[in-house]
Amino acid sequence: MKTFYHSAVKLTSGYLYEKQELNRKITVNAVYDRFSDTGRFEAFKFNYTEGGDKLKPHFFWDSDVAKWMEGAAYILSKNDDPALEEKVDAVVEDIKRNQGEDGYFNIYFTVIAPEKRFTDRDKHELYCAGHLMEAAVAYSEAKGKNDFLDCMERYADYIYKVFIEEKSAGFTTPGHEEIEFALIRMYRHTGKKKYLEMAKFFIDERGMRLEEYPGENKMKLSDWECSKYNQSHMPVRKQSEAVGHSVRAMYLYMAMAALAKETSDKELADACRRLWEDTVTKKMYVTGGIGSTHMGECFTHPYDLPNDTAYAETCAAIGLAFFAHNMLGLENNAMYADVIERALYNGVLSGYSQNGKGFFYENPLEINLSERFANPWGKKRLPITERVECFKCSCCPPNIVRVMSSLGNYVYGYEDGTLYVNQFISSELNEDGILCKMTTDYPRTGVISVRAEGVERVAVRIPAWCDSFKINAPYTIENGYAVVKADREITVELDMAVKTVWANTDVARDAGRVCVMRGPIVYCAEGVDNGNNLHRFSISADFGYTVSEGEFGLPEITVDAYKAESTDDILYSNKAPENKMTQLKLIPYNSFANRGESDMSVWIREK
Amino acid sequence: MKTFYHSAVKLTSGYLYEKQELNRKITVNAVYDRFSDTGRFEAFKFNYTEGGDKLKPHFFWDSDVAKWMEGAAYILSKNDDPALEEKVDAVVEDIKRNQGEDGYFNIYFTVIAPEKRFTDRDKHELYCAGHLMEAAVAYSEAKGKNDFLDCMERYADYIYKVFIEEKSAGFTTPGHEEIEFALIRMYRHTGKKKYLEMAKFFIDERGMRLEEYPGENKMKLSDWECSKYNQSHMPVRKQSEAVGHSVRAMYLYMAMAALAKETSDKELADACRRLWEDTVTKKMYVTGGIGSTHMGECFTHPYDLPNDTAYAETCAAIGLAFFAHNMLGLENNAMYADVIERALYNGVLSGYSQNGKGFFYENPLEINLSERFANPWGKKRLPITERVECFKCSCCPPNIVRVMSSLGNYVYGYEDGTLYVNQFISSELNEDGILCKMTTDYPRTGVISVRAEGVERVAVRIPAWCDSFKINAPYTIENGYAVVKADREITVELDMAVKTVWANTDVARDAGRVCVMRGPIVYCAEGVDNGNNLHRFSISADFGYTVSEGEFGLPEITVDAYKAESTDDILYSNKAPENKMTQLKLIPYNSFANRGESDMSVWIREK
Repeated sequence: MKTFYHSAVKLTSGYLYEKQELNRKITVNAVYDRFSDTGRFEAFKFNYTEGGDKLKPHFFWDSDVAKWMEGAAYILSKNDDPALEEKVDAVVEDIKRNQGEDGYFNIYFTVIAPEKRFTDRDKHELYCAGHLMEAAVAYSEAKGKNDFLDCMERYADYIYKVFIEEKSAGFTTPGHEEIEFALIRMYRHTGKKKYLEMAKFFIDERGMRLEEYPGENKMKLSDWECSKYNQSHMPVRKQSEAVGHSVRAMYLYMAMAALAKETSDKELADACRRLWEDTVTKKMYVTGGIGSTHMGECFTHPYDLPNDTAYAETCAAIGLAFFAHNMLGLENNAMYADVIERALYNGVLSGYSQNGKGFFYENPLEINLSERFANPWGKKRLPITERVECFKCSCCPPNIVRVMSSLGNYVYGYEDGTLYVNQFISSELNEDGILCKMTTDYPRTGVISVRAEGVERVAVRIPAWCDSFKINAPYTIENGYAVVKADREITVELDMAVKTVWANTDVARDAGRVCVMRGPIVYCAEGVDNGNNLHRFSISADFGYTVSEGEFGLPEITVDAYKAESTDDILYSNKAPENKMTQLKLIPYNSFANRGESDMSVWIREK
Repeated sequence: MKTFYHSAVKLTSGYLYEKQELNRKITVNAVYDRFSDTGRFEAFKFNYTEGGDKLKPHFFWDSDVAKWMEGAAYILSKNDDPALEEKVDAVVEDIKRNQGEDGYFNIYFTVIAPEKRFTDRDKHELYCAGHLMEAAVAYSEAKGKNDFLDCMERYADYIYKVFIEEKSAGFTTPGHEEIEFALIRMYRHTGKKKYLEMAKFFIDERGMRLEEYPGENKMKLSDWECSKYNQSHMPVRKQSEAVGHSVRAMYLYMAMAALAKETSDKELADACRRLWEDTVTKKMYVTGGIGSTHMGECFTHPYDLPNDTAYAETCAAIGLAFFAHNMLGLENNAMYADVIERALYNGVLSGYSQNGKGFFYENPLEINLSERFANPWGKKRLPITERVECFKCSCCPPNIVRVMSSLGNYVYGYEDGTLYVNQFISSELNEDGILCKMTTDYPRTGVISVRAEGVERVAVRIPAWCDSFKINAPYTIENGYAVVKADREITVELDMAVKTVWANTDVARDAGRVCVMRGPIVYCAEGVDNGNNLHRFSISADFGYTVSEGEFGLPEITVDAYKAESTDDILYSNKAPENKMTQLKLIPYNSFANRGESDMSVWIREK
């Protein structure tokens, strides 16, 4: 399907609208302030000198600011905010002033190590370029100002010359993917086929150099494993397993899907489908988090989904939503929108504090404070338990800014006279003669009303988590969507009953445990509500759940629970613990750690 | 009570006798061979030269060989083995030849770094001295040969001069405890009070230098934490929590208990009781393993007992048995003998392969092969899964040799006309007019027959795991012992029914899980019998257990079990997995990993 761009979609109310407003009012400025404090904006002035008073630019700082600019552009596309616009323009002026004659633009490789330009695949040079290109496209679209885009077109042309014409760079494809998708956006926005050609080049060249060695057994294992880190272990068309750094993987796969769509490349689309299936049926947390380990921020084995050491980087969940969104562009199947929903409402929002200023880089599914320890011989490596305002590697905060400000991207799609309703947010769509108004308080309630004009049919996603729904019109189910004629206001009512969820029995760490969901929202128990040592609680699907108003913008859930209590004070006993009846309060997982340090668990023992 | 020394006790048959014979026939020689291969014996010739062809001695090699010599001495005390005796004598000759004029003996600090003698508390100098002293005492007792003991008396006298008279060493107490207990053995064997005085000095001086700073809050945390590593954070008499390196802790606590007994020191005995309780009610695995983390080989927090990352060093379980044995010497309470039993049959023997040649340093309670991974950015740190013949730090193998060859130490005790039967092994006791013959096939069966002469009463331990027993005579229960008149052959029948065991509900990692024991034997499930992914199985105390003959010298157990199987192939489902009825085979934990790499779990999910 064609998915409508956020610029055609205005969110009007509801839970995600409130998050978008929080981002617009607080977060975009808070991230700007923290990036200012840490010298990231100043760095664009190219005034760093060794021994001077400026902070030394890191080789990925361009990308941090670029993602912020992209988010700011999305905000500016719908809101007048002269102060914000001025901040963006100031960076654009710096870029114009400091871009090389040849079109090159990179802070680190101009100010710190100019002699190393395009020699080190692992130094994020093309990754930074990609993020700047995405920001430039967004700003052009938002305000019609094309200075930034002109700069980035010149930069893209220079990259074309170096990598494709002259082949004079020290590497063929980037160590961190991103430019591939950015180039497709450049192509889509400018219509220039050269950028599509470049995207195809970087995608198709990946993993090709290893083909000179016939088969992995002729390589040293370390080379093979290293090349998996950035998905360079084999040509991407042959890949079937999600491997390596999970954010890089997602940025590659989304670009592959976008390229497959633009070029109707069936082979590439098939590779995307295999990588999709491997990701979502074997390597994804229930929250939409991906990347089980901090070691290389990587995928590990199928079903290896530890809860307390989960890495599940916020950017990876965002990347999964991006990948899913591009798969949805490739084929009409509600399962992709289901994963977008899972990731956005859970593993993405968990990285974003209630006050709009704090972030998680890692999003664990379990915290046991009593198991944390350090001694002079080491420290048990576990994720942090409180959100912070900025990281040294601060990719996640501006990624939140750009996702929250472009939520409209995920709502509607169109194909062959059918309007697809992919996400449920009160909103208005207006593009190409298609008008649609959706009214809902989802996911607080499951009632969604849609009135569409200029289309023949409306296809409303029926989420996979939903066993029961009503529609006020005749419908057929196609690829997970309920398809109805667009001749009336359509009202869909999804059953929002709380559900008990079990993980696949191949997931060792969730064995004997259940998780509680209501609609798309994954719930968790926190020590601050229930006392720590949450392992003592067990619940049953038969106990029933009570839903009440909660303090985090979504309902909270109370469930009868057993709490295990030893009957003697010895360590090992022939007597079973007593299970005392009590209650367990559950809050949305995405809102954990907003009330200080506390134990937390998504997966609760099943009685 | 007075516990009888192994020299007065001859094991005659049964499970532990077979292990002792395996040690005598295979292990003592296998460890000798590996230590020869690795240059440990050659090092005693003091012929290492920089750049020469000899392997560079490590600063703890003296202790590795000393523990082997001690074990060999125990074997030689009851068995003629001229070849073995010759090997011991050869080392003794090297020691005589290379001991300093002043009495000093240490390979590393003579051959490698003579200028650093007694300057570095953390280099195991007094630890090595202690193990050599224990070996010398053992060899004197075994063969009446006193050359070795003479050497060590001269060494002890020199240590007295340096540490107590001159106070000229660079430290006051050793970084790794061991000499404290060795000196008490020297005192007990020679009757020389000077050695008792030395033991008291090293025990009482520990942690005293920190008292110069009033309270921990005036110290830097790192100093405080570092000093906890070797139990030097406060005077030992004030200590209440088992902290730091678990082997060091045990070697200290056993010496404290022995000193408290020799000097009737109530304050010291009270400290021992507090440390005992903290260890066995908060920090001990069900196997008798202790020391939860590889980081510093340390204790961590109360109830922090992870199964897959359990360190539980073999030496620490041995040390726990030693501590318990000395507590039993201090007061007549069967709970100490219960812990000796728990440790010996489980966490000690698990470190010892069926063929007598392979060892574990770490003894995990769970192995999930599918969760093991390494990538170039790190490796998930988990214990090894197959026993090996030698370690770089190879303290555990010779510790097994000395424990297996001195099992007689743990069987009998005496006080005030009462003979205590602490462990159940077919054996004959003959000392000081006390004769006893015990006949049993324990723990294969629970029937134990004891005929004692020269005592008025016999006190037979009734293990805490045993809910039901029969005795063929009137009895009273005193401190966990069934006390009967010694006027007949006493037959005790312990109920050996398989028991379901629950951990205290404060232990997070055992929540919702049970372990299966039969008598003192902890059982586990292995993948090689049941298929890997043991997390899929759940059992119930109500299912009943079937006991049958097993291949590891002890019965095996079969239990009805559920095996969870997802009903769809998605990762997260609203449908509960099916629980298919099947069976789970359990083998003794101490015999795991004798049939290749496999998943393993002691704690099984409870249905």
